Amino acid sequence: MAVYTQCRAEDIADFLARYDVGELRMAKGIAEGVQNTNYLIETDRNRYFLTLYEKTVEESDLPYFHGLTTHLAARGLPVPAAIADRAGRVLQTLCGRPACLIQFLSGVSVSTPTPAHCRAVGQALAQLHLAAADYGMSRPNALGLAGWHSMAQQIGARANEIAPALHADIAAGLAAVALAWPRDLPFGTVHADLFPDNVLFTGTQISGLIDFYFACSDFLAFDLAILVNSWAFSADGADYMPELGAAVLDGYQSIRPLREDERRQFTTLCQGAALRFLTSRAYDWLHTPATALVNRKDPLAYLRRLRWFQQNDIWA
Amino acid sequence: MAVYTQCRAEDIADFLARYDVGELRMAKGIAEGVQNTNYLIETDRNRYFLTLYEKTVEESDLPYFHGLTTHLAARGLPVPAAIADRAGRVLQTLCGRPACLIQFLSGVSVSTPTPAHCRAVGQALAQLHLAAADYGMSRPNALGLAGWHSMAQQIGARANEIAPALHADIAAGLAAVALAWPRDLPFGTVHADLFPDNVLFTGTQISGLIDFYFACSDFLAFDLAILVNSWAFSADGADYMPELGAAVLDGYQSIRPLREDERRQFTTLCQGAALRFLTSRAYDWLHTPATALVNRKDPLAYLRRLRWFQQNDIWA
Repeated sequence: MAVYTQCRAEDIADFLARYDVGELRMAKGIAEGVQNTNYLIETDRNRYFLTLYEKTVEESDLPYFHGLTTHLAARGLPVPAAIADRAGRVLQTLCGRPACLIQFLSGVSVSTPTPAHCRAVGQALAQLHLAAADYGMSRPNALGLAGWHSMAQQIGARANEIAPALHADIAAGLAAVALAWPRDLPFGTVHADLFPDNVLFTGTQISGLIDFYFACSDFLAFDLAILVNSWAFSADGADYMPELGAAVLDGYQSIRPLREDERRQFTTLCQGAALRFLTSRAYDWLHTPATALVNRKDPLAYLRRLRWFQQNDIWA
Repeated sequence: MAVYTQCRAEDIADFLARYDVGELRMAKGIAEGVQNTNYLIETDRNRYFLTLYEKTVEESDLPYFHGLTTHLAARGLPVPAAIADRAGRVLQTLCGRPACLIQFLSGVSVSTPTPAHCRAVGQALAQLHLAAADYGMSRPNALGLAGWHSMAQQIGARANEIAPALHADIAAGLAAVALAWPRDLPFGTVHADLFPDNVLFTGTQISGLIDFYFACSDFLAFDLAILVNSWAFSADGADYMPELGAAVLDGYQSIRPLREDERRQFTTLCQGAALRFLTSRAYDWLHTPATALVNRKDPLAYLRRLRWFQQNDIWA
């Protein structure tokens, strides 16, 4: 949510000279992306994003992310493809950071999605899963079951500083999910963070699927469980919105119908998705000063989702 | 340097519906402007800036600022004019803040100006002074001589936490300037903050003069003294660059030659300009936590400029 690395216009102009993209006309640091520095660039020919990767992204993962968006863009998905310079290089160095010039996508993120938005994002996720089926690279999910356990251990009893008994709630949630976690569901490349922030719309048409920096290999239906968690609840997590949830699920299944075992295990996957964001937000909450300019995200909004999935059957 | 007020895309789209500017296609919060929240907006027709005024700008001053940019834009200066809605209103409320839709200007700020940039900015400032001569409103300079004294009093001996003897340096500098300060020089509307950050270039052509939120009524030559301070020294203030200073002064005088009394008093005005930024930066330095995401600007860069003007004759 900030410009961590300040680049001079002169440095950006020199950087652009490596590419066949025209002359610099504007460069604005934008408040987007929790992890990286992003500039919106305009040349006399076109607009671009310029991303500088800060220390939270592993440089060794960048070929996986850039390869994936290039693969998906070539199959017609509206993802921001990395742009190669005249020598064919995608990954560069600028102002001391790994950097990449990226295709501009217009559109806005919606804060209160309608069923039409939810149906569109369900379809887009299924299209992404199908289009990524022949992507040649893989990347373990660092924020899978083992990752949530390790995060919960690091948080420990300090969870109770956020809410009474949160430590026990997390432990019980994790134990139940670990016991029930599936072993053999359709597996492939997942976005793993397709929240409303990361989807751009023009009207109810999707114009961009962005921020692939959590993409990894996992159960495809787990990605759909993240979608239900992030699109089909009120912001505070207190209310499940059945018409939004149905639109997400119907949209997805209109392209890729779930198998019987995916449907049966879906509640467990949804509880896992809630725990993934509950544990990472709780960790960040305890490690971000309240005075920082970064917005702390409420972990309890995901505790409420976890409870909903513990007490309800989404297919009922 | 941050987005202080987060607006939902839905709120921005509703806001734009008051204007005849087309449909929202993109809204990005940009890291620009120390004081306000700025969005770069794109519709299906054009690009705009949307500014939300934070508490550091007096709402009662906004008609002065908006009137001035409208006046200057009508006279052909490349300033970001405020845009009126269908009912002719410029000042609006959005997300709980005073807000204004503003004309988009492309171009980039240079970090290391060349003589060609300096000459262009000198000319542009003189054009601004001439074009504003018949602007009907006025606004006292809160950061004039009395303002620096009051800021120095608030800083007090804590100045010495920044550098040894800084308290005495400021007091001596202020006393000398107060004694010599002119009473009767050409007076009018000044930008008062035309630093390199606030000038946009396409090549060496000026495409934008921005950030009029310090504009006020003062000696015209004081505005030129601010220009010499901010364009003609190395960033740390240690070195005066004679070829840059000459380009600023020649550019200005090619449009509006200084009167003899302005030339004679110019060193005092330059010392005053150095004190204006020395005192405000020292105040901010002592009141901004070192951990804040806002960049603290080095006050001593202006102590060094003050010393230069105390020891040298710019016309020599």
